[in-house]
Amino acid sequence: MQPSIDKPFVVNSLREVLDPEIGISIVDLNMVRDISIKENHVTVTIALTVAHCPLAKTLQADVEKALKKTGQIQSVTVETTAMSKAELNQLRTRLQSGAAQTRPEQGAGPGPGIDRLGKRELRNIIAIASGKGGVGKSFVTSMLAVQLRRLGYEVGVLDADLTGPSIAKVFGLRDRPTKSPSGRITPILTRTGIKVMSINLVLDDPEMPVIWRGPIVNSVIRQLYWDVDWGSLHYLLVDLPPGTSDAPLTVLQSLPLDGVIIVSSPQELASLIVTKAVNMAKKMNTALIGLIENMSSLTCPHCGEAIKVFGEPQGEKLASQLGIPFLGSVPIDPAVARLSDHGQIEDYSAPVLQNLTDELRMRASQHTEQLMQGLPIAWSLQPSEN
Amino acid sequence: MQPSIDKPFVVNSLREVLDPEIGISIVDLNMVRDISIKENHVTVTIALTVAHCPLAKTLQADVEKALKKTGQIQSVTVETTAMSKAELNQLRTRLQSGAAQTRPEQGAGPGPGIDRLGKRELRNIIAIASGKGGVGKSFVTSMLAVQLRRLGYEVGVLDADLTGPSIAKVFGLRDRPTKSPSGRITPILTRTGIKVMSINLVLDDPEMPVIWRGPIVNSVIRQLYWDVDWGSLHYLLVDLPPGTSDAPLTVLQSLPLDGVIIVSSPQELASLIVTKAVNMAKKMNTALIGLIENMSSLTCPHCGEAIKVFGEPQGEKLASQLGIPFLGSVPIDPAVARLSDHGQIEDYSAPVLQNLTDELRMRASQHTEQLMQGLPIAWSLQPSEN
Repeated sequence: MQPSIDKPFVVNSLREVLDPEIGISIVDLNMVRDISIKENHVTVTIALTVAHCPLAKTLQADVEKALKKTGQIQSVTVETTAMSKAELNQLRTRLQSGAAQTRPEQGAGPGPGIDRLGKRELRNIIAIASGKGGVGKSFVTSMLAVQLRRLGYEVGVLDADLTGPSIAKVFGLRDRPTKSPSGRITPILTRTGIKVMSINLVLDDPEMPVIWRGPIVNSVIRQLYWDVDWGSLHYLLVDLPPGTSDAPLTVLQSLPLDGVIIVSSPQELASLIVTKAVNMAKKMNTALIGLIENMSSLTCPHCGEAIKVFGEPQGEKLASQLGIPFLGSVPIDPAVARLSDHGQIEDYSAPVLQNLTDELRMRASQHTEQLMQGLPIAWSLQPSEN
Repeated sequence: MQPSIDKPFVVNSLREVLDPEIGISIVDLNMVRDISIKENHVTVTIALTVAHCPLAKTLQADVEKALKKTGQIQSVTVETTAMSKAELNQLRTRLQSGAAQTRPEQGAGPGPGIDRLGKRELRNIIAIASGKGGVGKSFVTSMLAVQLRRLGYEVGVLDADLTGPSIAKVFGLRDRPTKSPSGRITPILTRTGIKVMSINLVLDDPEMPVIWRGPIVNSVIRQLYWDVDWGSLHYLLVDLPPGTSDAPLTVLQSLPLDGVIIVSSPQELASLIVTKAVNMAKKMNTALIGLIENMSSLTCPHCGEAIKVFGEPQGEKLASQLGIPFLGSVPIDPAVARLSDHGQIEDYSAPVLQNLTDELRMRASQHTEQLMQGLPIAWSLQPSEN
């Protein structure tokens, strides 16, 4: 017997919808203000923390998805209103005290002689790693950034690959960063407003190599993080270089990461090296958010048949062997190389990337130390209301 | 008017055929002993330095190719004989004095504080580099080794990618190296007799990462070269890790390289990073043998149409911009991933790789300091005849 649609049923279905900024259920945040039901059509009114929150559309879509997923509700209307000043102040107090209580213990220290840098106003700092080069780590990093930005989040990308930097190129960035009034470096903005910092933006000639040994690599990576004025971000994505030596090691030791996403490709050879990267992250006590398999297959543009260019997809099996969540597979698409080469990766769209991003938002909120710690970023981006 | 076929014409055409070991024209080495001509069929008798030289077939093929290339000669028979002891002694004296005269000046030093290690009995030491990961550097390295071995050369592969080692896996190697009577480490032999050394052969668990900072990486790479009993080799191929930091830098500074082969893939993004690697090699005064473009295109196994997975091939243009020879393009073949995953790369064969190997032999002989320096390796592998 299917449950009938009544208010408790709707409220229960809305429990899984998290506020996209605060990472707490909108039911627990007392954001659900009104529910009206007409047969299998439901209208929900949600009180937003900020009247013109750029994340409002994402929240509306999440509400609609959660209700339709029940199978009982056929159509959904989401209306929005804004919280009153009194309500906002109450929420602010609650978040601040909650943050103080739930701030977890610092994990295992980064090791002797290496300071972990502070987190400032960066809610989720997520590194994208693979161990092996050429599996599309920079592509995954940039597409997660693009997709999160489309949902309304404030997003930054730190290109930690000093010797093979790709991020500036795929976004078509050439401007040189300047010093901000605070003395920090201002990151370069992409067309859609993603903040990017990469060594290639500060080199006089982007074709010249940085022939640096470990200690310099380490100090430059720390600078690219700490000396940059990232401002308030929901997500800072860090594109790691291949390997398990200085550069990735420094990121894992020095940056206050909330988690690592692992990118693999179908070859067993890649799996071997990806496993090494996962074992490094485990040794360093870094949370593993999940595994994305890239280049899973190619659809022939001539005959439409699937081609397994690098072998049978095995991301799901690999993730299960490694004991980490499987986030999904991304097929090879020749359009990606073309758009990357033209600096137009922000024009790319593929349904699988939307699913991946939803999965990331969900998983990240489970791993993040500090989602609850700060106040909604939108509050600081808008004129103060109290 | 076409030249008629006579003995001077044949001798002239044979001038370009180099002894595959000594790197000097077989005409200059006085190896051409008899020429008989019947219309457009030519029979040539070549005196080998060693009666059962494993390179005899390669020499025969080179002679046949050189003569047919003239367009005048339709069929060729190559007969072989062995040099007399007196002739061998004469050649030995000539090679030894020639080596003393032609030994070139040492190039620009490796930099303060870093010793360049000795060359021992390694004729050609060639690094395979790309700057960017995942362009198939290890595939190119292993296939050049396989192909040179098929031609009869003594070949070794040093896997200098400590954090992402692939070489042991593609050859299906699992044995642990042992100490030789000399106290050095004995490399592991592949099925066809290629000597391999890789960090993954000495790790207790091949899935565990080496989380080493630069100084340790550098010292281990030097050990993998110097502490290994490579014996006499025609070619030692060194598979470099991506990047332009510690590991590749150490190889360029510490190993007595004869040259570097660059591997690229069609993406402009890859070209940018490959250019960085080439600029590093130039800064270090390392000879650049040429550029190989990998993954140039894929033939759909269903409809047979060509798919440009990573964009338009541009290896030739890139090589010309970089001012280095273009050695050729290698298409994507799904069989490579399968054979690599099963440790059976020695079963792979593709005509393009034969051309590449011929090109390498030719270019290497132009770049190599020491081809003429030692005596033919086959002499030391066989019981002494004098």
